[in-house]
Amino acid sequence: MELIIDSPLDMHLHLREGDMLGQVAPYTARDFAGAVVMPNLLSPVTSLAAVHTYRDQILSCCLGHVFTPYMTLFLQPYTREELAAMKDDIIGIKLYPAGITTQSENGVSDFDSIVETLQSMSDLHIPLLVHGESNGFVMDREREFLSQYQWLAENFPKLTIVMEHITTADSLKLLDLYPNLFATVTLHHLLITLDDVVGGMLEPDLFCKPIAKTPEDRLALQQAVLSGHPKLVFGSDSAPHPRHKKECCGCAAGIFSSPVALPMLAEFFEDHHKLDLLQNFVSHFAKKIYKISPPVKKVTLTKKPWQVPEKYGDVRPFLAGRTMRWQVSHK
Amino acid sequence: MELIIDSPLDMHLHLREGDMLGQVAPYTARDFAGAVVMPNLLSPVTSLAAVHTYRDQILSCCLGHVFTPYMTLFLQPYTREELAAMKDDIIGIKLYPAGITTQSENGVSDFDSIVETLQSMSDLHIPLLVHGESNGFVMDREREFLSQYQWLAENFPKLTIVMEHITTADSLKLLDLYPNLFATVTLHHLLITLDDVVGGMLEPDLFCKPIAKTPEDRLALQQAVLSGHPKLVFGSDSAPHPRHKKECCGCAAGIFSSPVALPMLAEFFEDHHKLDLLQNFVSHFAKKIYKISPPVKKVTLTKKPWQVPEKYGDVRPFLAGRTMRWQVSHK
Repeated sequence: MELIIDSPLDMHLHLREGDMLGQVAPYTARDFAGAVVMPNLLSPVTSLAAVHTYRDQILSCCLGHVFTPYMTLFLQPYTREELAAMKDDIIGIKLYPAGITTQSENGVSDFDSIVETLQSMSDLHIPLLVHGESNGFVMDREREFLSQYQWLAENFPKLTIVMEHITTADSLKLLDLYPNLFATVTLHHLLITLDDVVGGMLEPDLFCKPIAKTPEDRLALQQAVLSGHPKLVFGSDSAPHPRHKKECCGCAAGIFSSPVALPMLAEFFEDHHKLDLLQNFVSHFAKKIYKISPPVKKVTLTKKPWQVPEKYGDVRPFLAGRTMRWQVSHK
Repeated sequence: MELIIDSPLDMHLHLREGDMLGQVAPYTARDFAGAVVMPNLLSPVTSLAAVHTYRDQILSCCLGHVFTPYMTLFLQPYTREELAAMKDDIIGIKLYPAGITTQSENGVSDFDSIVETLQSMSDLHIPLLVHGESNGFVMDREREFLSQYQWLAENFPKLTIVMEHITTADSLKLLDLYPNLFATVTLHHLLITLDDVVGGMLEPDLFCKPIAKTPEDRLALQQAVLSGHPKLVFGSDSAPHPRHKKECCGCAAGIFSSPVALPMLAEFFEDHHKLDLLQNFVSHFAKKIYKISPPVKKVTLTKKPWQVPEKYGDVRPFLAGRTMRWQVSHK
């Protein structure tokens, strides 16, 4: 049995930089037609020059693949002129509340400071991508940020706002209240709960931000995705860390899922007898929401078991060691 | 300033066995007059011979210290005769639901199988010590076990039942409903929440079972202890693991707090202007509940800053690197 997916897209991806970029980018470029690349590098991407440099670095790691990196800017106050000049080279601008995740120290701590930038983005049709967490108790952070989403949605009704990597039933409810809210959903939040992270042994490989939530939250996410919700799109939030940053005392947050994303999504949708909805989740809905035309690319999945390696370079992947039912065909 | 504590007791302690026993036992024997030693060894302690062997091993590691190890048995079906013969050598019997924590594979999976044993314990005045967690979602396990506590308290009204290492506001409420329920509280659950474990970086050193809970639960525990609640006694649940079991992928649960327990408790009670209640929490209440007369031992704490070492042997302690306000005087 074969499954052919038209131009699959990963609408939330961390490719890092330097050696790590070279190590991980090809896995996405191989399986996807395009991906939205996050800007939280060691020096955040905040200028057109930085966008170009980073895009060229990415493309040079993906030679031989039909693949478009959709670039993003790190949200800071930008003038309308700056935004107008950068608009055609980016798919959106990413808002990180200050201090909330890896390399977000320079994020937004005062929403008043970005009101004009947000208005310009709205006028120029530049989507706002948001890491929506407060600095509160780890299980409440996403819920506590919902009032900010509400404020954004109400004050900028023409701005396309993407609630990134949502994890809770509450976020799904808010999503349906405002026409300008959309959301990405990761593979791992469809599969794991906090139990998988700290319920048995402590599992650094499943530690991510936002943290995996309750069984009820996971079920709500699964049901929404499997219902074919047109405002929910796939974004892996694949975020590699080298092994030593995952094992030492005080380990970093992030799951590297790119090499297993499409095969596991196929398995997940198939298990729920919804394979027909996979194409929408990994491509069609995103094309409509972001108004993009990714390169034509047909990715073939065949039903041929394979085992996920324990390591890709020095990164341990999501589902390491697991036998997968579907395999991406690489000719 | 000095603080002299009469016969401090640690009513819940893991001393392990072999090299680890030799490494950690002296820290407890130095600072405490006695401690309740958990029986979940690689081969659980289930016979009088095993109790004697383990007690002698412990004592041989604690030479030169005034210290009584209060021994426990691992709960399995025991006859009344067996219990009568062992009664004088143990302080209680520990119930582990099967599979719930380190070396609990042989725990209780069917409460019907232990009804007669529990009745004999009640008749013979042997306390029941309980690791009260279900096999459910990690944040709900303690709450889900409350109905079992209720069943135990109602069906064995003369049995002394100790809810070990409680962590939630709900457990405190149940505690007050039945005269035969008591509870131990750890140092770390008075100080940390889930946020400290997974809210920033992942912190293997703060990973324990039961997992640290919410700020509301911690506050309820703090308030109950600081109110001088006479059914709450200190039990460190200090549970050392060698470093390699804390760093590898899939790390073990347990916090080693023995060397910092008394100094940190003094600081905690002092910060809340309740130093006068420390003696009750670390000794007097336990003597009443368990009807024990620990050896006379005066432990002196002086106000003299010291820094907690990064390691004791190959174990990283709780609060490693922290500067402590109080210090135990060792002459």
